[in-house]
Amino acid sequence: MKWPESITIKEVGPRDGLQNEKAFISTEDKIAWINQLSESGLKHLEITSFVNPKWIPALSDAIAVAAGIKKVPGVTYTALVPNLQGLEQAFKTNIDEVAVFMSASETHNLKNINKTIGATFPVLKDLVRETISAGKVCRGYVSTVFGCPYEGDVDIDAVIRVSETLFDMGIAELSLGDTIGVANPKQVQEVLEVLLKRFPADRLAMHFHDTRGTALANILASLEMGITIFDSSLGGLGGCPYAPGASGNVATDDLLYMLHGMGIHTGADQQKLTSASQFIQEKLGRLLPSKSFQAASSLLGGKLGNTV
Amino acid sequence: MKWPESITIKEVGPRDGLQNEKAFISTEDKIAWINQLSESGLKHLEITSFVNPKWIPALSDAIAVAAGIKKVPGVTYTALVPNLQGLEQAFKTNIDEVAVFMSASETHNLKNINKTIGATFPVLKDLVRETISAGKVCRGYVSTVFGCPYEGDVDIDAVIRVSETLFDMGIAELSLGDTIGVANPKQVQEVLEVLLKRFPADRLAMHFHDTRGTALANILASLEMGITIFDSSLGGLGGCPYAPGASGNVATDDLLYMLHGMGIHTGADQQKLTSASQFIQEKLGRLLPSKSFQAASSLLGGKLGNTV
Repeated sequence: MKWPESITIKEVGPRDGLQNEKAFISTEDKIAWINQLSESGLKHLEITSFVNPKWIPALSDAIAVAAGIKKVPGVTYTALVPNLQGLEQAFKTNIDEVAVFMSASETHNLKNINKTIGATFPVLKDLVRETISAGKVCRGYVSTVFGCPYEGDVDIDAVIRVSETLFDMGIAELSLGDTIGVANPKQVQEVLEVLLKRFPADRLAMHFHDTRGTALANILASLEMGITIFDSSLGGLGGCPYAPGASGNVATDDLLYMLHGMGIHTGADQQKLTSASQFIQEKLGRLLPSKSFQAASSLLGGKLGNTV
Repeated sequence: MKWPESITIKEVGPRDGLQNEKAFISTEDKIAWINQLSESGLKHLEITSFVNPKWIPALSDAIAVAAGIKKVPGVTYTALVPNLQGLEQAFKTNIDEVAVFMSASETHNLKNINKTIGATFPVLKDLVRETISAGKVCRGYVSTVFGCPYEGDVDIDAVIRVSETLFDMGIAELSLGDTIGVANPKQVQEVLEVLLKRFPADRLAMHFHDTRGTALANILASLEMGITIFDSSLGGLGGCPYAPGASGNVATDDLLYMLHGMGIHTGADQQKLTSASQFIQEKLGRLLPSKSFQAASSLLGGKLGNTV
């Protein structure tokens, strides 16, 4: 087994993590939390979303959050943007990177974006062009790469088509989403074998949800395939409002526990992140799903989440 | 990446799973649950423990349970036995296999068995001999192989010494326990590289707890090292009363989800096991930790455990 010496974590907790939470975290608390993350050694933070607040009320304070944080040099701050109206809002702030998104499966794309895949392409083409014109970096997400909650299996050709189209538009990096957490390590290997023939490993990220507990195993398989960029969410927050049964992203805490134990460098300070997990857990008022956070928290005298 | 075509699961839920639960499951319910497991395609069930009921009150009905179940031909029924008094009790029932146990770390062995490692060897020697004389199979457990809650790192030489001594006594198989769920895949690889030079792969089992969410990743690493026997607990039940912070065993449900998705044969019927998880969840009155069970349960209209 061969693993890389270091990897890059893209922390999506403040966006993917919070967007699905029932509790509204105040703008002040969001800013305080993101400022903690900025000081943790994590170099990439997706901090909010400029999706219509009607759809994601939890992030309706996107401008105030993006404008209110203390940016740390060397950290890239990203916001999710669905269309030009969202981009206009995003450009009122000082974010560094714009993330655009669509699905590999037609039905999930329709439910999530209210457009067919074919009708989504021109929207994203404009978005990527305007983002790059403004001197910002553009990142792409493909959802439902490993399965769709409506269609089941997703054809690899659909993934290739969306991926190639997004790269042709000019995105710098593509994040492959297991939106509903159905992937297994063999499938990860098979999908990456196909995609790595077309795209270099350093432009692909993996975005696993831990709905069935397989996220770290899937990351291990990805590492062995040469992938070095992973999206994760502090505490295991997250989900997708349009994907029934989708639970949180893989927890940054669990990912760091595994990687640091394996001697793989991430640059992140686990102790600082445990404090940041404790902060957001208190604000949310529920136990975070991350097992290694709960174990660390228990050893620090806190409550243990999942056993007596 | 190379994986085996089939593996063997040793279901430890009725013993390791229930021993740490606050709720006492009635003898009738235990028997009904084990009978469900017997019909699930699982071929190895550790059904109870003949440890002094003063220490494990949850399993104080060991004789009644072992005598009350409906044994299915082809299924091996195992009981955990600490000493000759326990063996005498076990022999009042019709179990097929006796599991003996000790730790690789001195302090955990003292806390768990109330004896030094040196003083434990003659006890187990008598146990293994009497078990084999009675025509039963004897299985061994080594705890704290990957870390001790009291001592931290555990020397691989201590693991080798205990393992060799147990095999010399005549055990058929040795289960390597990550009692407090601290292992990572690189450590698994390193420990197995050493042990597989001394013992054949088909006589080693892995027993992972999922305290930090790494159990399936550790199993993936074990599969790549040629291991084909895994202990798991339905629903992710389990823990160790003498290991602070130790959460449940890896969930059989999650393990099957991953393995079946990878095309690895286990012989188990996931649908029947989901029903058995639902049964024991209702009896325990708390949500089971298994993520894939909760996802399956949610899709069936039940409650989802770890997200909104």
